[in-house]
Amino acid sequence: MFIFAAKLFILKFMVRDKKPLILVTNDDGFQAKGINELIHALKELGEIVVIAPDGPRSGMSSAITSYIPLRINKISQDKHITIYSCTGTPVDCVKLGVNEILNKKPDLVVSGINHGSNSAISVIYSGTLGATLEGCIFEIPSIGISLTDHSPDADFSEAVKIGKQIAEKVLREGLPPGICLNLNVPDERKLKGLKICSQTKAFWKKEFVKNKDPFGETIYWLTGHLHNEEPHNTNSDEWALEHGYAALVPVQIDMTAYSMIEKLKHWES
Amino acid sequence: MFIFAAKLFILKFMVRDKKPLILVTNDDGFQAKGINELIHALKELGEIVVIAPDGPRSGMSSAITSYIPLRINKISQDKHITIYSCTGTPVDCVKLGVNEILNKKPDLVVSGINHGSNSAISVIYSGTLGATLEGCIFEIPSIGISLTDHSPDADFSEAVKIGKQIAEKVLREGLPPGICLNLNVPDERKLKGLKICSQTKAFWKKEFVKNKDPFGETIYWLTGHLHNEEPHNTNSDEWALEHGYAALVPVQIDMTAYSMIEKLKHWES
Repeated sequence: MFIFAAKLFILKFMVRDKKPLILVTNDDGFQAKGINELIHALKELGEIVVIAPDGPRSGMSSAITSYIPLRINKISQDKHITIYSCTGTPVDCVKLGVNEILNKKPDLVVSGINHGSNSAISVIYSGTLGATLEGCIFEIPSIGISLTDHSPDADFSEAVKIGKQIAEKVLREGLPPGICLNLNVPDERKLKGLKICSQTKAFWKKEFVKNKDPFGETIYWLTGHLHNEEPHNTNSDEWALEHGYAALVPVQIDMTAYSMIEKLKHWES
Repeated sequence: MFIFAAKLFILKFMVRDKKPLILVTNDDGFQAKGINELIHALKELGEIVVIAPDGPRSGMSSAITSYIPLRINKISQDKHITIYSCTGTPVDCVKLGVNEILNKKPDLVVSGINHGSNSAISVIYSGTLGATLEGCIFEIPSIGISLTDHSPDADFSEAVKIGKQIAEKVLREGLPPGICLNLNVPDERKLKGLKICSQTKAFWKKEFVKNKDPFGETIYWLTGHLHNEEPHNTNSDEWALEHGYAALVPVQIDMTAYSMIEKLKHWES
C-alpha cells in the first residue's frame, strides 16, 4: 500500500509535469519568522499556498470554530506563493484551504516551523500538530515542524534544512493513510543527524502561577515544565532532542488502544 | 499491571473506608443538562467535585489557555458535591482541578455527558475527550461520555444508566496507564447493550456554509456531516451506535504509529 502510494505520487508529478501543491500553515500566525523561513525553503519544491492564523494560536490542539463565522484575507500573491490569513484555529485553516480556497487537493501539508518544541505529550496540545493531523484526516501527506527555541527571533537555519529534506522525501515516497509526521529540531548550530522516534512518555508539572489581578481577584497563569518519565529511552523524541538530533515521530490519527479491546470484552452486554 | 492496578484500587478504598473522589467536567458548560444528570447519578459512587467551563466549549479538543489568565468561581457546595466554574477550556478545568483545587489526586475523571456524539474521528476535535485525555495524562482513570442527541433538552436517561455502570466498573477494575475510555450512547429509548469498539475510520465532508455578513463581507460557518469510510465494520463505534448499542472505545494518549518506525529507519542520518 505504502510503496504503491509512493509510485502513484511520482507518476502524478511526471505525467502532469507540474509542481506539487503545498499547503503551509502554523499556529504562531502568518507573520511569524518560523513560517516565513519555511515558505522560503519550500517554494523550491512546489507551488505554495499559505493559509495561517491572523495571530498566535499556540496550544489550540485540534480545536475548531463553530459558534462564530470564519473570515479569510488574501495578504499577498506572486507567481508561486499565495498567502492568506484566517481568523480561526490551525485546523480551521486546513479545513478552509481544502474545502473552500484551493481548487485541488494539496499534495502536501506542512505546519510550522513552530517557535517552541512539540515533542512528547505536547503533540496532544499543539496547534501545529492539530493542523498536521487535519491534513492527515484529509488523506494528504502531512508534516508538523517545530524548533525547541521559543524566541520570536530564533535561528531556524537547521530546522529549515532538515524540514525541507523531509518534505522532499514525503513528496517522493508518500505516507500511508492515517499517518503523519511530527518533526522536532533542537536549538543547535549543527544537527548531529535525524532519528526516527516514539512519543516520549511525559507530562507537564507545576503548571500554574497563582496571582492576583489589580482588583484583588485570584488568577492562574498556565506554565510548568515537562517531566520526562523515560529519560533513558534512546528511541524517544526527548532523548534525541537532548542529544542534538532532530526527532521524527510517525503519528497516527486512530487513537484506539487495540491492546485493550479484548481485555474489556467481558463488559459487553 | 492491569490486574495489579485494579487490586490496588479496591485495597485503597477498603483501607481508607472513604468514598472515591470523582472529578467531573464537560465542554458544554456547568449549567448544561448533560453534566447535571451525570452529577446526580455519580454522587452515589463518591464525593463529587465539578470543575467545568462557564459556558460552551464544544470542539475545543485538548486546547489550553496560556495567553490570558484563568479564573475559577465556586458555584455551590454541599456535603458530597462541590461545583466550580472556570473561564478556560475543558483541559484547563482538569489541570486546575488536579494542580490547584483538589487536595488529593482524584480516583476518577468523568467528562460529559456531552450533548452530541463524539464517535469516530470526533475524538480528535472533542473538548469532552480533551478533558478525558487530560485525566489520563495525569494517570487518573478517565471516561468521556457523549449522547448522540445535540438538543439542550435531550433525554439522558439511558446514557446516565450505562455511564454510571462503566464508572463503577472503572472504579473497581482500574484502567492501565495511558488508556482512557470514550463512551458514546445512541439516542434510543432502550439500549440494545454495550459494545467494545474501535474508532471508526471517517472524516467530515461539505464542511462550510459560505455566506455574507451585513456589510457584504464573505464569512464561513463550519458545519458538515460525518462520512463513514467503513460502514460495514461491525467492530467500529459508528456501527454500534447505528444499531442501537452504546459504543465504548479504549483510547490511548501515545499517538506514535509504531508500525511506521521501521519503515522510516532508512531516513536516519
